[in-house]
Amino acid sequence: MDAILVLDILGVIAFSISGVLTSMRKNMDAFGILIIAFVTSVGGGTLRDVLLNDEVGWLSNMTYAYTIISTSILAVIFRKRLTFFKKSLFLFDTLGIGLYTVVGIEKGIGAGLHPIICIAFGTMSACFGGVIRDILCNEIPVIFRKEIYATACILGGFTYFAISYFNAPEGIVFIGAFLVVVSIRLVAVTFKISLPDIYKLYDEN
Amino acid sequence: MDAILVLDILGVIAFSISGVLTSMRKNMDAFGILIIAFVTSVGGGTLRDVLLNDEVGWLSNMTYAYTIISTSILAVIFRKRLTFFKKSLFLFDTLGIGLYTVVGIEKGIGAGLHPIICIAFGTMSACFGGVIRDILCNEIPVIFRKEIYATACILGGFTYFAISYFNAPEGIVFIGAFLVVVSIRLVAVTFKISLPDIYKLYDEN
Amino acid sequence: MDAILVLDILGVIAFSISGVLTSMRKNMDAFGILIIAFVTSVGGGTLRDVLLNDEVGWLSNMTYAYTIISTSILAVIFRKRLTFFKKSLFLFDTLGIGLYTVVGIEKGIGAGLHPIICIAFGTMSACFGGVIRDILCNEIPVIFRKEIYATACILGGFTYFAISYFNAPEGIVFIGAFLVVVSIRLVAVTFKISLPDIYKLYDEN
Repeated sequence: MDAILVLDILGVIAFSISGVLTSMRKNMDAFGILIIAFVTSVGGGTLRDVLLNDEVGWLSNMTYAYTIISTSILAVIFRKRLTFFKKSLFLFDTLGIGLYTVVGIEKGIGAGLHPIICIAFGTMSACFGGVIRDILCNEIPVIFRKEIYATACILGGFTYFAISYFNAPEGIVFIGAFLVVVSIRLVAVTFKISLPDIYKLYDEN
Repeated sequence: MDAILVLDILGVIAFSISGVLTSMRKNMDAFGILIIAFVTSVGGGTLRDVLLNDEVGWLSNMTYAYTIISTSILAVIFRKRLTFFKKSLFLFDTLGIGLYTVVGIEKGIGAGLHPIICIAFGTMSACFGGVIRDILCNEIPVIFRKEIYATACILGGFTYFAISYFNAPEGIVFIGAFLVVVSIRLVAVTFKISLPDIYKLYDEN
Repeated sequence: MDAILVLDILGVIAFSISGVLTSMRKNMDAFGILIIAFVTSVGGGTLRDVLLNDEVGWLSNMTYAYTIISTSILAVIFRKRLTFFKKSLFLFDTLGIGLYTVVGIEKGIGAGLHPIICIAFGTMSACFGGVIRDILCNEIPVIFRKEIYATACILGGFTYFAISYFNAPEGIVFIGAFLVVVSIRLVAVTFKISLPDIYKLYDEN
């Protein structure tokens, strides 16, 4: 439980910073920046909890609000220095989706859901904060066009159940799935790999 | 119960195909296409269930996920042949909104809601998958501009309560309301009928 | 309880009218206008109730639906006369956000939430109807760019807890916070005051 909370908070920090940077690129004001940071951080998890009819975490656990508010203020103040850390921020974001994917899957398992739905919940937890962010910024969600983002989460989800199948200890399953998500995304971005284009794939039909 | 499930699945197929075609027109990738198919199919019902604080159907009933995933794959593979069936797809969509309207109304009745709210729930179940689809595709929802779509659902809803009022058997009420939604939309599109323009209607004021 | 309901309904009327006017500026049809009026009126409160896992008010209390439907019809019919009341409508909107802020805070307190989350809930109740309206109209939410709107709600929220701290009677707390929200917005708009620009504020960094 405690380890999951710590990992969740790490993800919140990563997503808050990326939310602040995105909203500042859109010239939003202080309130807009805070909302976008908030939504990017907890949006995916909130949607997941609402669908599960579960208690939404950030309502009662003040760690989320404190983390998002202080991260946002620091990110706004030190934004010029943040631009030097573009690669670090990409890493933060990648660690964030890795963490959220596994946390989302485990929430689904806790609710007794089918593995496919659990993988969907993991992907949703990781990616839908960004989807809501893009909708609020009036753009088509970027992950619907650059599929390696969500694909990494989905493959991490399959890894989770594959490792569990062999009765691996819980920690190994968690870390294995986390590392698969993170590695796939790092490799895909580093080598500019993308999935085959389905608009060409079946053109013989 | 079983008849409702079968009808629900038929609607899911119809909406998945229209979701796939819409998202492919937007050049989305495989992940985007699947999400739009999913959202178009179950978005209206999910919003309805969340508002009712009810269990969301597709979480535990795997038929939805299997139907959407396999329909989407088949629709992508055979998309060139689908264009020959433009009229069939319009019919699928129309059958879909007819089914969803009645299913939504009956969910509302089951929750003890007022007929007006039940009709709103029927219309929401039928139309809001498309609304969320359009928001995700960064467009003003098409049904807010072509009113005969939602109007058919609303009139079908009134029909439902009108027939119930005369103590007709449940099946007759269901089929009657369903047929009213389907016929109004078919007639409106065939003869290009639209409601009076409220921007002109009261210009004498 | 009854006083809150009355104030809630007053807010619903104010927001319905502003929703009708916004959607008519977008040339929406009768159905679109009604939905935008509905969403602007109850959207913030609905999001709040869904997050609280609470019963959504307008499902069982028909006063909301009747108020929104009749206000919308009257607003459409008398829209030409409404343009003479531009300032009154601004006042309506301002009264609306004042009321919704305090109602939202009290819902949060009722659920045992931390003051910061209560203030967030008050602001959400007041502002997110407008956010959803802008998303459905395919625009970046206006309150993310003109911050004095949400800022008034946040400051009203702090006032609420500041007055409560001195054990003031409930009515005083309610009216005090309400008046702070309303006055800040009236003063800000009248004298065209906006918050310091954070894009310049820290440029020495």
